[in-house]
Amino acid sequence: MYDRLPASGFITVRGRVETYQGHLQLVAETVLPIEDRSKIDLSELIKHTRKNIPEMHTRMREILNKIQDKQLRAIVDEFLNDAEIMKKFIVAPAAMGLHHAWIGGLLEHTVSVLELAVVVCPRYPDIDQDLVLAGLFLHDIAKTVELSYAAGFDYTDEGRLIGHVSRGAMWVDQKAQAAGAKLGGPLRRDLVMVLIHIILSHHGVPEFGAAVTPKTPEAILVNLIDNLDAKTQMAIDAVAAPAEDNTWTEYQKAFGTKLYRPSITIRD
Amino acid sequence: MYDRLPASGFITVRGRVETYQGHLQLVAETVLPIEDRSKIDLSELIKHTRKNIPEMHTRMREILNKIQDKQLRAIVDEFLNDAEIMKKFIVAPAAMGLHHAWIGGLLEHTVSVLELAVVVCPRYPDIDQDLVLAGLFLHDIAKTVELSYAAGFDYTDEGRLIGHVSRGAMWVDQKAQAAGAKLGGPLRRDLVMVLIHIILSHHGVPEFGAAVTPKTPEAILVNLIDNLDAKTQMAIDAVAAPAEDNTWTEYQKAFGTKLYRPSITIRD
Amino acid sequence: MYDRLPASGFITVRGRVETYQGHLQLVAETVLPIEDRSKIDLSELIKHTRKNIPEMHTRMREILNKIQDKQLRAIVDEFLNDAEIMKKFIVAPAAMGLHHAWIGGLLEHTVSVLELAVVVCPRYPDIDQDLVLAGLFLHDIAKTVELSYAAGFDYTDEGRLIGHVSRGAMWVDQKAQAAGAKLGGPLRRDLVMVLIHIILSHHGVPEFGAAVTPKTPEAILVNLIDNLDAKTQMAIDAVAAPAEDNTWTEYQKAFGTKLYRPSITIRD
Amino acid sequence: MYDRLPASGFITVRGRVETYQGHLQLVAETVLPIEDRSKIDLSELIKHTRKNIPEMHTRMREILNKIQDKQLRAIVDEFLNDAEIMKKFIVAPAAMGLHHAWIGGLLEHTVSVLELAVVVCPRYPDIDQDLVLAGLFLHDIAKTVELSYAAGFDYTDEGRLIGHVSRGAMWVDQKAQAAGAKLGGPLRRDLVMVLIHIILSHHGVPEFGAAVTPKTPEAILVNLIDNLDAKTQMAIDAVAAPAEDNTWTEYQKAFGTKLYRPSITIRD
Amino acid sequence: MYDRLPASGFITVRGRVETYQGHLQLVAETVLPIEDRSKIDLSELIKHTRKNIPEMHTRMREILNKIQDKQLRAIVDEFLNDAEIMKKFIVAPAAMGLHHAWIGGLLEHTVSVLELAVVVCPRYPDIDQDLVLAGLFLHDIAKTVELSYAAGFDYTDEGRLIGHVSRGAMWVDQKAQAAGAKLGGPLRRDLVMVLIHIILSHHGVPEFGAAVTPKTPEAILVNLIDNLDAKTQMAIDAVAAPAEDNTWTEYQKAFGTKLYRPSITIRD
Amino acid sequence: MYDRLPASGFITVRGRVETYQGHLQLVAETVLPIEDRSKIDLSELIKHTRKNIPEMHTRMREILNKIQDKQLRAIVDEFLNDAEIMKKFIVAPAAMGLHHAWIGGLLEHTVSVLELAVVVCPRYPDIDQDLVLAGLFLHDIAKTVELSYAAGFDYTDEGRLIGHVSRGAMWVDQKAQAAGAKLGGPLRRDLVMVLIHIILSHHGVPEFGAAVTPKTPEAILVNLIDNLDAKTQMAIDAVAAPAEDNTWTEYQKAFGTKLYRPSITIRD
Repeated sequence: MYDRLPASGFITVRGRVETYQGHLQLVAETVLPIEDRSKIDLSELIKHTRKNIPEMHTRMREILNKIQDKQLRAIVDEFLNDAEIMKKFIVAPAAMGLHHAWIGGLLEHTVSVLELAVVVCPRYPDIDQDLVLAGLFLHDIAKTVELSYAAGFDYTDEGRLIGHVSRGAMWVDQKAQAAGAKLGGPLRRDLVMVLIHIILSHHGVPEFGAAVTPKTPEAILVNLIDNLDAKTQMAIDAVAAPAEDNTWTEYQKAFGTKLYRPSITIRD
Repeated sequence: MYDRLPASGFITVRGRVETYQGHLQLVAETVLPIEDRSKIDLSELIKHTRKNIPEMHTRMREILNKIQDKQLRAIVDEFLNDAEIMKKFIVAPAAMGLHHAWIGGLLEHTVSVLELAVVVCPRYPDIDQDLVLAGLFLHDIAKTVELSYAAGFDYTDEGRLIGHVSRGAMWVDQKAQAAGAKLGGPLRRDLVMVLIHIILSHHGVPEFGAAVTPKTPEAILVNLIDNLDAKTQMAIDAVAAPAEDNTWTEYQKAFGTKLYRPSITIRD
Repeated sequence: MYDRLPASGFITVRGRVETYQGHLQLVAETVLPIEDRSKIDLSELIKHTRKNIPEMHTRMREILNKIQDKQLRAIVDEFLNDAEIMKKFIVAPAAMGLHHAWIGGLLEHTVSVLELAVVVCPRYPDIDQDLVLAGLFLHDIAKTVELSYAAGFDYTDEGRLIGHVSRGAMWVDQKAQAAGAKLGGPLRRDLVMVLIHIILSHHGVPEFGAAVTPKTPEAILVNLIDNLDAKTQMAIDAVAAPAEDNTWTEYQKAFGTKLYRPSITIRD
Repeated sequence: MYDRLPASGFITVRGRVETYQGHLQLVAETVLPIEDRSKIDLSELIKHTRKNIPEMHTRMREILNKIQDKQLRAIVDEFLNDAEIMKKFIVAPAAMGLHHAWIGGLLEHTVSVLELAVVVCPRYPDIDQDLVLAGLFLHDIAKTVELSYAAGFDYTDEGRLIGHVSRGAMWVDQKAQAAGAKLGGPLRRDLVMVLIHIILSHHGVPEFGAAVTPKTPEAILVNLIDNLDAKTQMAIDAVAAPAEDNTWTEYQKAFGTKLYRPSITIRD
Repeated sequence: MYDRLPASGFITVRGRVETYQGHLQLVAETVLPIEDRSKIDLSELIKHTRKNIPEMHTRMREILNKIQDKQLRAIVDEFLNDAEIMKKFIVAPAAMGLHHAWIGGLLEHTVSVLELAVVVCPRYPDIDQDLVLAGLFLHDIAKTVELSYAAGFDYTDEGRLIGHVSRGAMWVDQKAQAAGAKLGGPLRRDLVMVLIHIILSHHGVPEFGAAVTPKTPEAILVNLIDNLDAKTQMAIDAVAAPAEDNTWTEYQKAFGTKLYRPSITIRD
Repeated sequence: MYDRLPASGFITVRGRVETYQGHLQLVAETVLPIEDRSKIDLSELIKHTRKNIPEMHTRMREILNKIQDKQLRAIVDEFLNDAEIMKKFIVAPAAMGLHHAWIGGLLEHTVSVLELAVVVCPRYPDIDQDLVLAGLFLHDIAKTVELSYAAGFDYTDEGRLIGHVSRGAMWVDQKAQAAGAKLGGPLRRDLVMVLIHIILSHHGVPEFGAAVTPKTPEAILVNLIDNLDAKTQMAIDAVAAPAEDNTWTEYQKAFGTKLYRPSITIRD
């Protein structure tokens, strides 16, 4: 029976629930693959953001409206107006299994880092907020083709052979040409270069996947904000996950340790 | 003449300025050590924060007022009411030569990370803001005894043999006992433990000086906010420093690279 | 049945022994948790030093009597006279699972490194033996609160969040204040500082848990003697453990290899 | 006088040669920048390949003619027919200062690895020689924009912010689209993907600049052949360089050691 | 039954094949150890080179005939004429489990690197081909005593305690003395030294087992050719191995990744 | 004048001493190379052990007399009776510039580690003292050919290409054969193997020069005792060296830090 199941996909299980040594236990009677995917409501079966996707989408566009540089805005608009990319963007997960690994996770993470940028950038007046916003919007955009999430999450062939860092850079290169064509001439070469640089460097160090190390204040800040949101969210999720031990989580590979769970302060 | 000068200290130079091959050049005629330090206004001679120290001090106390947990607040107050520590706190540098390496730098950096916490924490409702604020206030407080800054910046013997991470932890341990004595009984043991944990772990990894790796969401966030402020400020300072090359800074050891200097976006 | 057992603790098993395919096999008939711990003789159930604890304790005090510096001796005495600490000191294990991981292991390891110091220090007349003896006595003393060993060995919450290195340093700081109070004035600041430095640095490098790297000849020697005893004992134990293969032990994580077991020399 | 010289460029020095303590010494009398670059024959002033550039160019095209896959050949031809790229390709150096750091070095290194591929690939029949040849031709092609070599060798802004690995991948992406347009439809997606993968991974590991690690036998072999030619040539050059010590070269950073110079075997 | 089987050795299994849930399944009825090894034809039971051993042996001697230096040739001949070593050399595997891990693998790998040297060396006229050929012949020769392969592959005690790198160096030292005795006087000291150096350094870096880092162009090239053949063959074998997934192999520890399997180019 | 001086060797300087700005200063009038080395008393010119070489030599033989295993003793005697090796052994330095870097340093270090073994081994009855003594005597014996010390210390060609670890192993291999010949048959194979293993592994990890990692308790202890003596002596020497700063030494590369100099304890 097990052999006839597909390696990835969905199944229907019919059976009964019994009590066994004080635990509930499922006794499967039939297990059948679901051939007709149109009958599946993905959001019921795969882990899903608890936030509202259209609201997050709207909020993201609101924040991106703050970008004042016309050419930079034109590149961003090329992506916002690319229906194929945006359709995937709003449902893709942000990672295979680390942070925001759920349907809508990429959008949720992107909005989260943009919200952080909006409050953090004004504290550093020498930072070019336009570049940071555009860079954060685009830093993970090629996760839409790096990951597959039709039934379970996995890397695509392209994800493994090219990766979202390099694919993202190629896309910005192409969209900048398209934007230039619409604006009546090539965009400023330096502008496109530092934007691509942010995509290429946003993982910080080569050991973590950066194609180059960040070499502008804005590229450095994009890496720091991305890191802050990803790690804080991972820590919160780890501590919130149900576990037998009330005091310590399971070992967290991303942090190289178990995390301590109790809430400590009393707000009175 | 050179031999009679002290290894550290201040001198008076009298001489004349001439033009030599198109450059100004100083020809020293007499060089004398200044024996009476009371005549020296330190702020004229050593690099100094460009912000207002009393204003920053006031702002720091305002933010710390947001801490609602009474016991945590009592520990923080033990430090705020320790005149000896606070006298040094408002003038000490935050580092020997990396970020905020100037008189008032420790206060400036501390206020900056507290300001960041105030806007970042509300975005993560599961994070305990009280702990983050107390941890950020105290994370570098023992830099007041790790560094000497009477005339030039250097490590003290204690700074090299104990370090601000361990000394800070010892101080919190002592202040918590003192606070408990005033509140009529020992503070909650867990509370003191997780606060000390934040001090011990705020450098993130042992290779960068952490005594333990961060093991609570709040300790993780304190490390990330500290890192974000330190690196962003360093990058901004590096790019702003005068240099012969308009395009690239000198090699930045902290970033492992030169940084690219030009401003790119045009806000119109 | 299995579900009703506690995660840690002791059980009574009643059953019968049978022969199955040439091996003895235990068939459990009833498995019951032991609620009343007073009925348990721990030394029968948990691995235990094969040496005599009172004799080791006496020997340790004999060696510590060699310390001639009065202030250093006063700090050491604060610990020797702390009944709560010493009660745990003589039964605690020295580690979770590496070396001397048995009841009484901390005392056994401490006596062993003190004995080594007594024969090694005289070979280096420039080494301050007093400091080395005090440092070795105290280097692992906070393992008494880092590890729990009531029923199986584990880290305590404090062990994971603070660790024995930092807790040991805090204790020496406090005991030095207490000793000063008794001697009629604060102890020499440098003396306390270099003693705390030995505790903080005894793991040698940050990657292995040192809060600072050793920066005095005595701190360096304490690290080397500690390391020599721990690794030699681990190697001896590994080779002595029963194993199916006469020639090689199981893989030893601490050495990154299997060890070769045979005795080779013939003493005739 | 020195101040008026440009940071990079060429100068005319007029002076006389004298004998000083047994050495020849140049006494400069006038030093003037050369304003009119058209008067400079670069090949006289910058280190230059000792091989014949047109011959190497012809040989490279001969080897590339062995590529049988039509679509792969079409991508290669897009580059060979791009006059702007090829004009730089035949004069660019292959590196700033490691291997083939001379005018024509990129072409010389490219021909050398192609010649190696032609004799190595047939020894591994399962290796796809077409892919290896195309990959080796293109692996360093964006060094043409990564390095500047008009007067001395340096990185360009683009070289530091994007790098030849990512730029090379973007170019192949664009040329594949152009080739597809000419052949009447998009090229096979997998083919373009594995070719781009070779460019992205040819440095082998992220620490040495690879955007992804090599994940096909052909990508692995391209990395190995590139490495073999670069290191062998560096070793030969190091040993051949004039030095005061007949036996050992200067310290070679690329090898982490000095190299031993003498020829040892006698062929008789 | 299982307990009576030897830890390594051969067994006879008698049973029947049945169909179970659509798969073939073996039901063992008797399992007996084979006591008399003379009845076993090893080549039927252990993985074996698919090439012809006598032909490879002949080809190896042909290539070694190209060595022109008489003294170097004399050392090589000492090995070729050592019946005990050569008997093992032609059947030993080249590794436990990475590349060429099969009977005859050492010979197959040695011939492969010699063939590569014959086509690669002429492309670098400054390389001493004699030394490279002798070095490649001898680089792994002590694998004959490092590995056991009578029944399954394993390390010998000597393999773990001494290793093939050091044992190979000792052998060359001894054979050079024997060769000198036959030629009427000690061989040139430098010649023996650089040959031993190649053996000691052929793993490239200490982390991978080199006793010293390569310090001559020939030692560097031996390491590169050895590496090229080992890794290329491993990649080819990995991709050719049967697997459930048509697109990606299992995780390959040697490459730190899965490999992509499809053939891409069409040769028409 | 400077040009006529040899790269290494000795010179005679004739001049006068003057006072310049409060310092003594040497004004050289003639500088002549010393052609006739027989006129030089090396011990006056190169740093030299402060201990008595014949006394140390006698002590070493006394300790080695404790070895009871006849075959092991026979190997040791082969070295003790090799006049050429022992002549160098008693004057060679133990290192280029780290520990015991002076004439007689190898003997001094060897006696020191043997003395340590004599007091340490009895504390671990399961340790084979014979093996430890023989291993410590031989661990650095090939430093006699690794280093040159006729005029200043340097590595020899053999030192760089083979190293004392591998050369020491080859020597033990040869001496064991010679000893076997004298005792009337080959020595026990295992005995020779574990002794060579100690030589090959005494640097502990490959990164520090070990050809294999230590895999017997005795090899582990040899590494630990060698390390203890080398580092303790280095620390003592560093703190004793004259320096301008009374409190901290110069940066010590071997310890990755400056060392703290003051003596702290008062023995009253």
